[in-house]
Formats: sequence, structure tokens, C-alpha cells
Amino acid sequence: MKWPAHGANLNYLFEALKMPKPERIIDFSANINPLGPPPLLKEQWHQLYDRISDYPDPMGFLLKKRIAEREGLLAEQVLIGNGGAEIISLIGRMLSGKRVVIVQPAFSEYEKVCRVNGCSIEYHQLKPDHWEWADEGLDRKLEHADAMFFCNPSNPTGVYYPKTVVLHLLEKCATNNCLLIVDEAFYDFVPTYESIVEYMKDFANLLVIRSMTKMFAIPGIRLGYLLGDPTMIKEIGKFQPEWSINALALMVGEWCLSSENHITKTIKLIEAEKARLTDFYVAENFLVSPSSTNFYLLRDPSLEDQFPFYQFLITQGMIPRHTMNFVGLEGTWMRFAIKSPDANDQLVGAIVAWRNL
Amino acid sequence: MKWPAHGANLNYLFEALKMPKPERIIDFSANINPLGPPPLLKEQWHQLYDRISDYPDPMGFLLKKRIAEREGLLAEQVLIGNGGAEIISLIGRMLSGKRVVIVQPAFSEYEKVCRVNGCSIEYHQLKPDHWEWADEGLDRKLEHADAMFFCNPSNPTGVYYPKTVVLHLLEKCATNNCLLIVDEAFYDFVPTYESIVEYMKDFANLLVIRSMTKMFAIPGIRLGYLLGDPTMIKEIGKFQPEWSINALALMVGEWCLSSENHITKTIKLIEAEKARLTDFYVAENFLVSPSSTNFYLLRDPSLEDQFPFYQFLITQGMIPRHTMNFVGLEGTWMRFAIKSPDANDQLVGAIVAWRNL
Repeated sequence: MKWPAHGANLNYLFEALKMPKPERIIDFSANINPLGPPPLLKEQWHQLYDRISDYPDPMGFLLKKRIAEREGLLAEQVLIGNGGAEIISLIGRMLSGKRVVIVQPAFSEYEKVCRVNGCSIEYHQLKPDHWEWADEGLDRKLEHADAMFFCNPSNPTGVYYPKTVVLHLLEKCATNNCLLIVDEAFYDFVPTYESIVEYMKDFANLLVIRSMTKMFAIPGIRLGYLLGDPTMIKEIGKFQPEWSINALALMVGEWCLSSENHITKTIKLIEAEKARLTDFYVAENFLVSPSSTNFYLLRDPSLEDQFPFYQFLITQGMIPRHTMNFVGLEGTWMRFAIKSPDANDQLVGAIVAWRNL
Repeated sequence: MKWPAHGANLNYLFEALKMPKPERIIDFSANINPLGPPPLLKEQWHQLYDRISDYPDPMGFLLKKRIAEREGLLAEQVLIGNGGAEIISLIGRMLSGKRVVIVQPAFSEYEKVCRVNGCSIEYHQLKPDHWEWADEGLDRKLEHADAMFFCNPSNPTGVYYPKTVVLHLLEKCATNNCLLIVDEAFYDFVPTYESIVEYMKDFANLLVIRSMTKMFAIPGIRLGYLLGDPTMIKEIGKFQPEWSINALALMVGEWCLSSENHITKTIKLIEAEKARLTDFYVAENFLVSPSSTNFYLLRDPSLEDQFPFYQFLITQGMIPRHTMNFVGLEGTWMRFAIKSPDANDQLVGAIVAWRNL
């Protein structure tokens, strides 16, 4: 069976599973803000029509300036991307033929773009059930590495590593003349997040990837950005196609940055739901990852391979994200987005039914 | 002075020229359908809001199927792109380190992506004032070439080369084990256009690039596609970032393909305006390129470098496209989009004023 590489787009999942798609489904496989986009987007949506017939600003000047100001950086330290996925792809292009370490388990695109660009790859594996940071074996790998990918908070575990860990890695990488790429796609869901952007003053080997599609619920529009040293930002930008960020994304991005209140509301909701769900899982003897963001890993410890549990949930119309292509998980856990209270209630209902089978 | 690489986004032009931007301007530098998008897009615009919070289909299945059916090809012979520019960039990635011939003058992105990917480049130069096809010197270049870029109809001249010329080139390229990349970004404005897609049955070395942003006036949304041999389409697709085509583009693309009537109306308008403008230019002793599409080159034969004429028009708020980065032109011509009758009238007015200076 060929599992889809990512969540969302569930038709591909049901095709792979050779199962009919249930009539009512709730998609827990895509980690998108359950509050949806900031209200401003719907209010001003009609204005966007007037932008479709002009080329987008190839420099994305206004949005870039906004992001730079927000981060206390120069505009030359920002590269806007057609989603975080494009940023990862451009970094992969720059790393063509180089030696790369990937901290696992991690978003599968790092490995995909590295393979496409002929990189050699080593894993630094963090271990269940807590995925704490551990240096073990890393020094030897870094000696020969040109770059390391580190997802923080981690997708798929949701574990957030505080900035002391990042600083520790940055120092190790700098000593070994190695680039550290920190993917912060879900950083804005972390209540205790501390920015690592300040380290750019001292470390030219730090790149930070951000996504705007998760918090602002705009994966259909595509928008992400990269922060780093101006020289490297320029080098990576050379590989970017002209007009890569569409005109709607450029405008919507500015609206999102004017919606700070939406972030506060979202974090509050996610934290409350996460506490409630965790209590339930613990009481029912499930294992759940110590997530600081808007998704978590779940495991029924009575099963090694979670497939029967996974399959049961799917027949109930509750769609988790499989973990077949997460290195070190391979189906032994499932990932769930934290959604609205009502959707989470329905998931809880289905899981109670699984327990009572 | 650093000229902007492309038309549109006029702020960059006025910055480069160190000129204040006139209050009223008409932009002839971007070759976009003066009728605007098909009416369906405005009518159904509000529907698109509901698509922003879901990931786009990474395969673009429905749109790909529509394009394949329209062209009589398999879905595996179609790659959808985030604009034609992304397609060109992906082809450049595939050609990394190879030897490339570019038929000049041509859209500057071919050379840009080839240089970024370390290709060696030779030009095959077509000559003013008619840019007829000429083989002279080509055989020697093709002996060592891995690929050739050919823009048809040509951007910037607007000259359309009938399919006999393409077949001739395809055969030459096939003999030399060379890929022929035909960029048909403006094919749908050509009243006498004959499809070359049928040649794909016999020639695996043919790639055809199409853009949907010009005819359907959606450069802000980004949409293009590539047609070719399934093996090569797959190889090129590997370099494409995940979810590269946004969800709005995928939907709008289907709406555009349901708007054939818009193409007929557009061609009629463009042809009428082109005839009228050409009569005027000939009567006033200007040189104009024999364009078959929605833009043309213009030259005042009393000047070698057109800069004074260019500058005059700009002060009148009429913005041509400079030709500084078109190989073999370098400022000796200017390019103009064919716009609405009213806009074209205003251009004519400004040109009469130039004549009467």
C-alpha cells in the first residue's frame, strides 16, 4: 500500500486504503487553526479580485518590510515563499550534493528535497515516548555535515525545545561549519515560545523557516518566509522562480500580521482543548506526546502497530494522520490536530467506542 | 542604471529611472488581455473564500485532467505550474550543468534559470526587422547542446513561427539528442495558431510551456502548465515544491477553461486594434514588428537608441517595456502590449506629440 505523503486531501487516503469515503468526516490530519482565518480576511475578500490582473510584486516589498520590522531584522534578512514547502525546496536546492543531518521524527519534506538534490543524509533520532533532546551520537555526524534540519516545535510530536537547546545546537553547528535550519512552522501556537531570531546577530549559520498557513488557516493561499543572514537569503532567493508568491498571498499576509488578537484567541482555545483531551487520554490509558502546539501524537499501548485503531477511527469518520513516513514512528503512533471543542468531542466519542469494542 | 528585469510593477521602473511617477499612467509593459478575466471569475469570486483553509490538491487532479483532455494527452503528460515562470525554473533545475541554446531575442527567464543552474549557454540570434527563422550557424551549436529554448510566438517580437518551423527544429534536435522547449505563453492570442502537441507522439524530446495568466488576465493568481513526455514530466515534477499551485489557481484554471468564448472575443479585439495601430505606425514611418500576438515591438528609425523616445512616452504616462535585457535589441526597440481601444488611442496621441516635437 502506498500511503499519501501528507495529511489533508483525503481522497488520496481513501484511494490508498481502498475504502469508501464515509459520508461525514472530520479531518484531524491537517494542523490548521480551528478558528479559521482572521475575520479581516472574509470581510475584505472582495477587494482581492482587483489584484488578480496585475503581476505580484516580485520582491514582495511591503510584506517583507512588515515581517522584517516585526522580527527586528533588515528586509534583506527575509525571503517570502510560496508556502513553507517552497522555502524548504529552495534550501534543498542550495544544499545540492551536500551532507545533511535531519533530526527525526520530522516533516518528510526535508528528506524529500535533500534526496531530489542528491544530498547524503544521516538521521539524528529522538526517542518516544518523550522525544527529549539528546546529543548522543550527534558530534560524529556534525563533523562531516554541511547542514542540519531541526523542526521546532516538532512536527509530528508537537514537542517544543526551548531556546537553550537551539543555542546549544547552534554552537555545535558553528564549530563544525554547519548550517542549522530551524523549521518553526508551528511556533506561533506555543504559549511559552521564545524567539531565536536574536541569535542571528552572532550566528550567520542560522536559518529560521516560518509558515503563515497554519495559524492563519490559509494553506490554500500558500505563504511562508525564511529569516537568516543576508548573504544566504540572497543565495537561496536566486533559485526562486520569478513572481513565486501570488498577489493574494502578499495582501492576505499583511492582513494576517494585523490580526495579532487572532493568535491570542487561538492559543487560549488550543491550550484549553489540549488540557481536556490529555486528561481524557491519560484516564483512558492512552499514550499522548507532550505537545506544546496544535497537534499531538496518540498511541494505544495495547497495540504495537496502531493500524486497527486507525482503521476503526476512519470508519467512524475521524481521520487521523498516519505516521508511516515519520522516521522512528512508522505507524506506532497517530497524529491528531486539535480542532474545535465539538470536533474534539466527536473524536473522544469515537475513542470511547474503540475502548468499549 | 539597473533596469528592472521585467515589465509591470512600475514602481521599480520609476525608481531605476529616478523619475517621479506621473499621476495618470497606462501600463503597456505587461502583456495582459485588455478585456480582463472571463466574467465567470468575478461572478464566482466569493466562492473562492471557502477554499483558502484547505490545502490545495498537490496533484491538481481535476485541472490536470481538464488540460489533458483539451490537448488529447494523458494526465501524466501535464505538469501544472505556479505560473509559467515556475515551469521554466523547474526545467532549468533539470538542465543543471548542461549545455543550452537559446533562440534570441527571448524572454529573459530562460537565461536566468540556466545561469543559476550552472548551464553553459549559446545564443541563436534572429535578426531585425523581421526576425525570420534562419538556420545559419545552428547545426554546429546543436551538435553539443542538451536543450534549446524557443519562444513561439516570440516574446518580445510577437513573431509566430508556423508549425513547419517547429517540426524542422524538432527533427534537428532529435538527431542531436537535444531537448526542444517551446514556450507558447502567448499562443492563444495567435489567430492562425496550429497546435504542435501532436508531435509528442513521435518526439519525446518536445516540451511545450503554456501560460494561463496572459489570455485570462490572472498574473496575480499564477498559473501555467507544461506538456511533454510522461517520463520527463515526472522527472521535472520531482523538483516542484509540494502544494506549489495554490487552491484558488486550481479552481480559477477550471473556470478559465470553461470560457472559450472569451478567447474568441479577445482575438477579435486584438486583431482589430493591431491592424489600426500598424496602419498608423506605417503611415508615420515607424518600424513595427510583424506580430501575430497581443504585443509588438516599435522603433523610431530616426534614432538608434530609443531612449529619448522611451523617456518622452513615460513623461506622458505611457509606459512601454524597455528592451535593455533582450539580447539583440538592447534598447533599439520598445515593446508595447495591445490594450483597449481607448488606451491605444491615448498612446497614439502621445506618439503624434513625439512626431510633432
